[in-house]
Amino acid sequence: MRSVVALAGGVGGAKLALGFSQILDPDELTVIINTADDDEFYGLHVSPDFDTVMYTLAGVSNVETGWGLQDESFRTLGRLKQYGVDAWFNLGDLDFATHLFRTQMMGEGKTLSEACTKLAQALGVRHRLLPATDDPIRTMVETEDGIMSFQEYFVKNRCEPVVKSIGFEGSNSCRINNDAKEFLMNMDLLVFCPSNPFLSLAPILSVPGFRKIVESYPGKSVAVSPIVGGKAIKGPAAKILQELGHDVSSLGVARQYVGLCDTFIIDDQDVSMKQSIESLGMEVFVTKTIMNSNQEKKQLAEFILDISA
Amino acid sequence: MRSVVALAGGVGGAKLALGFSQILDPDELTVIINTADDDEFYGLHVSPDFDTVMYTLAGVSNVETGWGLQDESFRTLGRLKQYGVDAWFNLGDLDFATHLFRTQMMGEGKTLSEACTKLAQALGVRHRLLPATDDPIRTMVETEDGIMSFQEYFVKNRCEPVVKSIGFEGSNSCRINNDAKEFLMNMDLLVFCPSNPFLSLAPILSVPGFRKIVESYPGKSVAVSPIVGGKAIKGPAAKILQELGHDVSSLGVARQYVGLCDTFIIDDQDVSMKQSIESLGMEVFVTKTIMNSNQEKKQLAEFILDISA
Repeated sequence: MRSVVALAGGVGGAKLALGFSQILDPDELTVIINTADDDEFYGLHVSPDFDTVMYTLAGVSNVETGWGLQDESFRTLGRLKQYGVDAWFNLGDLDFATHLFRTQMMGEGKTLSEACTKLAQALGVRHRLLPATDDPIRTMVETEDGIMSFQEYFVKNRCEPVVKSIGFEGSNSCRINNDAKEFLMNMDLLVFCPSNPFLSLAPILSVPGFRKIVESYPGKSVAVSPIVGGKAIKGPAAKILQELGHDVSSLGVARQYVGLCDTFIIDDQDVSMKQSIESLGMEVFVTKTIMNSNQEKKQLAEFILDISA
Repeated sequence: MRSVVALAGGVGGAKLALGFSQILDPDELTVIINTADDDEFYGLHVSPDFDTVMYTLAGVSNVETGWGLQDESFRTLGRLKQYGVDAWFNLGDLDFATHLFRTQMMGEGKTLSEACTKLAQALGVRHRLLPATDDPIRTMVETEDGIMSFQEYFVKNRCEPVVKSIGFEGSNSCRINNDAKEFLMNMDLLVFCPSNPFLSLAPILSVPGFRKIVESYPGKSVAVSPIVGGKAIKGPAAKILQELGHDVSSLGVARQYVGLCDTFIIDDQDVSMKQSIESLGMEVFVTKTIMNSNQEKKQLAEFILDISA
C-alpha cells in the first residue's frame, strides 16, 4: 500500500486530487488543503479551497465557474441583497447548506477538520481530505490599494490590485492538523499540486513545523507547475509572480520549491525550461499537465505515480 | 392621532395586524409580538411569530401554509438533510436569508428588536413591529410524552402530545423591550389579537412587568376570541383549552382575560355565549371575526376601532 500526500489549493489541486482518487485506494491518498482562504460570510464559516476539492471529488462541483456546485440557485443570496447586505461573495442555496452545517458543528465544539470530514463523508467522498490546520490562519494581501483579506482581493477586487506582499495571519500560532501530521510523517510520496505557490501552497507551508517536515522528508516529492507557457491555467498566479518580481514561468515557480521538492513536472509547452529548472537541482519531467477531462486528470496522476515508483 | 397597541402571536395576530395597518398610519399602530416560540435551527436564530407578522404586513407571506414566504423553495434544507441533519423544521431558501441576516446582526451585538426592525424596514413594512422582549424567553410544553420546546411540540410532534402545563423559560429574567414599554404606557387602545391565549399571548404577559401594565391600564382594551364555534381557526388552541381543563369555547378564552381586558369580541356563531361572557364583567360585541380576505381583516380592525372610539 502506498501513502501519497498531496498539498492542494482550489481548482488545480482539486483536479489532480480527482486524478489520484481514480487510481489510489481511499487509504492511499491524503489531500492536505489550504485553509488560509477561509473567511466568514453572512455569519458562516466558509472554506473555499476545501469545498472545491470536496465538491470535485464528490462529482458535484461546478466546473464552469471553478467554485460552488452544479445546478446551483441563488435565492438566499438574492434576498440577502434585498435586505441591504453587501453580498459580494457569491454563495448558492445548496452551498449555503455546507456552510450552515459546518458553522453549526464548529459552534458546537467540533474542529474544522471534524466538521469538514463529516461533510465530505455525507457527500460520498472516500479519500481523506484534511485542512492543513484546524486553527485560524488568514491570507492577507498587501496591495497598492491597501491590505485586504484574500477574498477581498480575489473576489471583491477580482485580483486587480497590484500585490506588494502576502502574509498569513495566525501562522505563528496555528498548529498542523494531527492527522495531517501523521500522514506527512508516514508518506512515501509528496505531491505539490499545480496550485498557486504564493496563495495556496505557501500558507500550508507556513503552518509552524510544516515546512520543516517537508524539508527533512527523505522520500520522493514532486511538484507540478501551475504556470504553462507563461500563463496560469486559472487564477492570478502569473500576475502575482510578476508583481512580486519573479519570472512568470514554470522556472519562476520551481524556484519557490527549491529545498522542498526534488522533482518538477512541466508541460510539453515549457520543454525549453527543462535545463534551467534542472540547474536548480531538481529532476525535471515533461508531460501534458493541462487537465480538462477526467481522463487527463487520471493520466497526470498516473504519470506522477510512474516517475515516483 | 391614535396609539393602538396590538398583542400578537403568529397567523391570527398577523391577520388582524394587517387589518389595522390598512386603516392606521404607521405612527398609530404598534404590534407587540410573542418571541417565546423563537428557537435556534441550523445554528440560526429563528423568530417564527415575528416573521409571520412581518411577512404578512410586507405582503409576502405564504397564506396557504400559514408560515414562511410565497414562491419559496427548499434547496438549502434538502441539502442539509443530505448531510444527515435531522431537518424537521422547514425553512425555505428565501426564509433562510431572514434568519442568516438576523443571526449575523445579533452576533455583531444588535438586539433582537434592532435586527427585526432592520429586516422589517428592508421588506417595506411601515408600521412598528416589536418583539415583546429582546431577551431569551422560551415556551416549554410539559406533555404526557415529556417536556419539550414549543417547536418540538408544535412542528416536530404536530401538537399531538397531550399538554399538562406550559411554562416560559427565561420569563423571570427577561425585560420588556424599551420601545414596547413606552408605547404600552402611552396607548389609547390595547388589542388582544385572536392568537392562542396560552402559547402566544401568555408568554407576552409573562415578561416581568408586562401583565401589571396591562392590568393597571385605565383605557379601552379589546380581545378577539381565537375560538369560533368551539374550534380554533388555526392551530392547537382548542385542543390545549380542553387538555388544560377549560371550556373549549370563546367563554373559555374570555376567562383567561379577566382583569386584563374590558371588551371581548366573539363571532356571530357564538352569539349564545354573549351573556356568559358578560357575566365575567366584560362588554361583549358580536361580529364576523373570521378573516379570510384582506377586506375581512380590515373590517374587523374597523369594527374594533369603532367600538373603542
